[in-house]
Amino acid sequence: MTKKVAVILSGCGVYDGAEIHESVITLLRLDQRGAQVQCFAPNIPQLHVIDHLTGEQTSETRNVLVESARIARGQVKDIREADVSEFDALIVPGGFGAAKNLSNFAVEGDKCTVQPEVLALAEAFAEAGKPVGLMCISPALAAKIYGPGVVCTIGNDAGTSAAVVKMGGTHEECDVHDIVEDTQRKLVTTPAYMLATSISDAASGINKLVDRVLELTHANDH
Amino acid sequence: MTKKVAVILSGCGVYDGAEIHESVITLLRLDQRGAQVQCFAPNIPQLHVIDHLTGEQTSETRNVLVESARIARGQVKDIREADVSEFDALIVPGGFGAAKNLSNFAVEGDKCTVQPEVLALAEAFAEAGKPVGLMCISPALAAKIYGPGVVCTIGNDAGTSAAVVKMGGTHEECDVHDIVEDTQRKLVTTPAYMLATSISDAASGINKLVDRVLELTHANDH
Repeated sequence: MTKKVAVILSGCGVYDGAEIHESVITLLRLDQRGAQVQCFAPNIPQLHVIDHLTGEQTSETRNVLVESARIARGQVKDIREADVSEFDALIVPGGFGAAKNLSNFAVEGDKCTVQPEVLALAEAFAEAGKPVGLMCISPALAAKIYGPGVVCTIGNDAGTSAAVVKMGGTHEECDVHDIVEDTQRKLVTTPAYMLATSISDAASGINKLVDRVLELTHANDH
Repeated sequence: MTKKVAVILSGCGVYDGAEIHESVITLLRLDQRGAQVQCFAPNIPQLHVIDHLTGEQTSETRNVLVESARIARGQVKDIREADVSEFDALIVPGGFGAAKNLSNFAVEGDKCTVQPEVLALAEAFAEAGKPVGLMCISPALAAKIYGPGVVCTIGNDAGTSAAVVKMGGTHEECDVHDIVEDTQRKLVTTPAYMLATSISDAASGINKLVDRVLELTHANDH
């Protein structure tokens, strides 16, 4: 049975949007494993536009949904159109977009809030007992989605893991090639570019995350 | 011995820049095979900025090098800094950027010219007998780089292959999962998203192209 997976993108580029490598590796692995994918993004302005050559903020404005369409080759929908009942699982790649556009973690740290439409969708997957995969910095949203006690990883960064703990999460250190699983909540996380020093390093953990999320969807088969 | 491969990007997004999936799959495979990669792009304005959600042209201006930095996570250099003697091979992903920014094929068809710095670098690889990989629409530049008789594929599109032939190229139809090789010129081409209907389809041909280009670098080992 074909599994349907929703992927939330947060723009297009590591410093102001979705991390491109993580997003493409996720889409590739899902397709290679026979899953059907629909990308979603919030239809909101990006917090920043960053010149990825210099690292400087520019005066431009860009829209998260419109830029996400670059990664999705146009096949992305407004997240308000996402219906949890149509999907078996949810995956959120990282990049600063997860901390700037899907939430304000980049600005507020452990006082952050998650963008309301993103939070509503992620909570719906959690409440339905459907598996969720979060990678890179996205697991910083886990405690906001699942509440206190949720087990996740953002690799081994001291400041970020302290913020995760402050929000009520239980942080486990994790190698870039590995995943952390909260078996009760069916949440799978991997550090990806929080730790990766090469694209193949990132791919090794992301591929494990995708495979495990797809395995977990079968626990919901009847 | 570690092989060094130059990759020319043409922006960030299929409709006005480098095709993102093709670019990332290329970088991933090169890294997985142990090659060292340096991305380059021309420091010029994009011909167009296309809203990838609607397909419409916008009034924005963007720079090819700056947008390419999104795919390269900042690690991209002005193509004027590229020195053929430092590399073993060259690969150019597709996307409309190859036909709009690296050349004007999208506008001029078989009367096109290649952006001078891109042409100079590609010709230097050809003259040095170093292997080159072109995918998707990029093989439309092959006859401009290698001259008449060069063998390549853009898949099976009638109009595009007719333009390739008009420019002096010899077009061979090719499946998305396969490659065409001009053994004399060490040029490897694959249709990628000229034909691919899924990201894993595109990856299958691109992976073969990357593998073959790396194999061909060994013919230059002493």
